Amino acid sequence: MQLRPVSGLPEIRPGDDLASLLAERIDPGPDSVLCLASTVLSKAEGRFAALEEFPAGPRAREIAARLEERTGEEKDPRFAQAVLEESTELLMESPFLLTETRFGHICVNAGIDRSNTGGEDLLLLPKHPSESAARLSEALSVPVIVTDTCGRPFRHGQRGVAIGWAGMPASRDWRGEHDRDGRELGVTVENVIDELAAAANLVAGEGDGGVPAVLVEGFEFGGMAGSDEHFREVEDDYVRQALRGWSHE
Amino acid sequence: MQLRPVSGLPEIRPGDDLASLLAERIDPGPDSVLCLASTVLSKAEGRFAALEEFPAGPRAREIAARLEERTGEEKDPRFAQAVLEESTELLMESPFLLTETRFGHICVNAGIDRSNTGGEDLLLLPKHPSESAARLSEALSVPVIVTDTCGRPFRHGQRGVAIGWAGMPASRDWRGEHDRDGRELGVTVENVIDELAAAANLVAGEGDGGVPAVLVEGFEFGGMAGSDEHFREVEDDYVRQALRGWSHE
Repeated sequence: MQLRPVSGLPEIRPGDDLASLLAERIDPGPDSVLCLASTVLSKAEGRFAALEEFPAGPRAREIAARLEERTGEEKDPRFAQAVLEESTELLMESPFLLTETRFGHICVNAGIDRSNTGGEDLLLLPKHPSESAARLSEALSVPVIVTDTCGRPFRHGQRGVAIGWAGMPASRDWRGEHDRDGRELGVTVENVIDELAAAANLVAGEGDGGVPAVLVEGFEFGGMAGSDEHFREVEDDYVRQALRGWSHE
Repeated sequence: MQLRPVSGLPEIRPGDDLASLLAERIDPGPDSVLCLASTVLSKAEGRFAALEEFPAGPRAREIAARLEERTGEEKDPRFAQAVLEESTELLMESPFLLTETRFGHICVNAGIDRSNTGGEDLLLLPKHPSESAARLSEALSVPVIVTDTCGRPFRHGQRGVAIGWAGMPASRDWRGEHDRDGRELGVTVENVIDELAAAANLVAGEGDGGVPAVLVEGFEFGGMAGSDEHFREVEDDYVRQALRGWSHE
């Protein structure tokens, strides 16, 4: 398996034809997957925003005041308002805002970016990453994964994850497979879109030297194509249930 | 960046000289990293165990009884005992056992494997994965990551993670880097050993066709070598704090 950064993409602006810009720069084969940083999609889709578009309501002011108190840092209640408007559920409000976005992704600050914003205050995540991925996947004839980077419990640092995908299922399914001793495997469902996003992040880099698109070549399902399940439902997510019943002071 | 499965490894048995077996099959360059499935290390280190080695105490019997009640499946209290003995903290005991292993990794059932056990009941995780990685790394002159697969909150399926590493730091550190607009980056610390483990899992596969070692070539720190922090401390882990105060019924 090989990963190549897609070089030479210009700075993306609202309305840019991403599909054409990418088509000129990649030559995908049958086992290729294109991983694309969500920031690039957001920019093409014009998801820039100014803080003044989010006049803070009482809930946002309360959240910002509590965060200020807890962290000792100045917090703009309009930013809290933006996070609330991008989210369907607030899972933690201190010492940072952990929410579920409208498309099911759980992350800090609803994934709203305050760097890489092209001079604007904010860059919001794409509205429907998997729908955007589907349009690109069709135009480019290659599976597309929309990536983001985020932190996680138990383990330090951030890593690449998939927040949208099209043209391939989310997982490989090893159920029914056996080990060398003939026993059924303990590992059953492998989330390959997250693994591909993590792999792509290793070659994408960050900052002004970063490359927002990576072509993976030689990834094979090997007959193990699985389901499209990616974001957990709360019934199936015990950690999320625990967070619902807890507040950190 | 390129990932190649290391083919032709025999079934590993206790006492096998893994370093020699691997040295014959890889030719690492300056930007290579060797990812090795923990099962292989466990086997070489003789971490097989029989259930009868874990006579269940009252805590293990209580846990198994509750799990049986909740899941409707038969649970061997000796297995619960093995999990407890491999762990320093029990974070969840229903509907599955989530614990911290003695070396700081949080996972289900302390990572004890009931498949791929070479005819024995259980295969325990390596005792000190980073120490094992250090011995191999020195012998092979290449950074080594010991991998496992596990599930996680919020997202379906399992993915490869690092449980031990040597010869390289755990992270790339982008602090101080700037975006194209000159603003400081929101993403700061990238956990590259987990990303490499995830990438390796994509080519390693599972089951009797799986390959337990993968050589990554062309991974570069690019001057961004970061800290060795990997497993979070509880003070820094709000999800873990939430789990401590919660029980799922």
